[in-house]
Amino acid sequence: MEKIYEGKAKILYKTDNPDVLLTHFKDDATAFNAQKRGTIEAKGVMNCQITVALFQWLESKGIPTHLVQQTAPDQLLVRRVNIIPLEVVVRNIAAGSLCRQTGLKEGQKLPFPLVEYYFKNDELGDPLLTRDRLLVMELATPEQLEQLQTLALKINQHLQDFFSGCQITLVDFKLEFGLNKQGEILLADEISPDTCRLWDQNQSDPQDRVMDKDRFRRDLGNVETAYQEVRQRVLNSVQKSN
Amino acid sequence: MEKIYEGKAKILYKTDNPDVLLTHFKDDATAFNAQKRGTIEAKGVMNCQITVALFQWLESKGIPTHLVQQTAPDQLLVRRVNIIPLEVVVRNIAAGSLCRQTGLKEGQKLPFPLVEYYFKNDELGDPLLTRDRLLVMELATPEQLEQLQTLALKINQHLQDFFSGCQITLVDFKLEFGLNKQGEILLADEISPDTCRLWDQNQSDPQDRVMDKDRFRRDLGNVETAYQEVRQRVLNSVQKSN
Repeated sequence: MEKIYEGKAKILYKTDNPDVLLTHFKDDATAFNAQKRGTIEAKGVMNCQITVALFQWLESKGIPTHLVQQTAPDQLLVRRVNIIPLEVVVRNIAAGSLCRQTGLKEGQKLPFPLVEYYFKNDELGDPLLTRDRLLVMELATPEQLEQLQTLALKINQHLQDFFSGCQITLVDFKLEFGLNKQGEILLADEISPDTCRLWDQNQSDPQDRVMDKDRFRRDLGNVETAYQEVRQRVLNSVQKSN
Repeated sequence: MEKIYEGKAKILYKTDNPDVLLTHFKDDATAFNAQKRGTIEAKGVMNCQITVALFQWLESKGIPTHLVQQTAPDQLLVRRVNIIPLEVVVRNIAAGSLCRQTGLKEGQKLPFPLVEYYFKNDELGDPLLTRDRLLVMELATPEQLEQLQTLALKINQHLQDFFSGCQITLVDFKLEFGLNKQGEILLADEISPDTCRLWDQNQSDPQDRVMDKDRFRRDLGNVETAYQEVRQRVLNSVQKSN
């Protein structure tokens, strides 16, 4: 198969259908703009399964996604889209770069969900954008920005509902969107412990509760165990709701 | 006189009137969050005179400022305000950190004036804020933010008019605002070659045209000459309009 793109966590291949691509989820892990690199055992399979479960959940709630179907434990067929070069981050609780940049305390509940836009550009270090900067850079039209904002907030609501059923707090997460041939916006990329901050509601210790890539970023240990636990709770929750 | 605050470019003193402070403009120059330090000869006097001329021009256009009167070449009496800890930056042309952070080309005319908010916090490096971050941090209320935005755009229009009469292009500038006892927002701080990017319309060379602190930041030489030229053109323009 012809590889058309290799990112830090996934590889995209062409298929016989020009409108459909194959995504392979890798075990490679990177952090801090790829300055830290490693491998998380079976991450590809876990993130692929979690993404499928969450994308199917979101589709059932009326959110259009690029998912076609799973073809292997770590492989998905997805609709071909032009990725909008934005990381759309939704935050319910202050953590990570938000705290480092503003002085807000980690763990502080935000008075409303923050939707933030970062320029997907490794060379510039994925900088935070204001809405006006984004428009001046022509990364999206005002109408597309309005749609992204609405979609991000809806997805946040649905994911919060889902994760609270797993006794997991959804702290924040990153989304990517793409445009199909018709110019419609589809949710793309993945939703997994690589792209979310997830805190175990059964743990009160600030380190023990971490179930996401922060375990890798901050060398907290038990990275695979945490991802497996997320996978298990997500799959159990899907099974219960069926 | 009792000093109540010393910043990088100015000192504030108490006066006999509790509602009025005295500002002394210093010759000290700093850049890059005070990592670069120096002195620009007679800067205090020049910036004080330029600030008075511009604040009086803005007052005549209905913009409320903290200016009471000039009491010495480098000293102003100003109304006492609580400074809102924001640097309000208005940009007409891409330059400086906007270019470094977004990849926009220096000198590119922006399709609309960008109003940007930075957190006045040396420890955090004066980070760029989104409107939502600013509200979550409670640095201003939504109503105050609306007023700041409106004031910043009006001031930009008036300053562009003024500087174009001096054959100077107003590339971008930084404003600070304060609240008086009645909770009214007044323009405070200064407007000078320390806080604006000003390009000489009679020069086409990208280095020769610089008439502001970028000459100091970027070691372009002739810093005092450039400030003197701005001062002269500003005062000539005021004289003509009287």
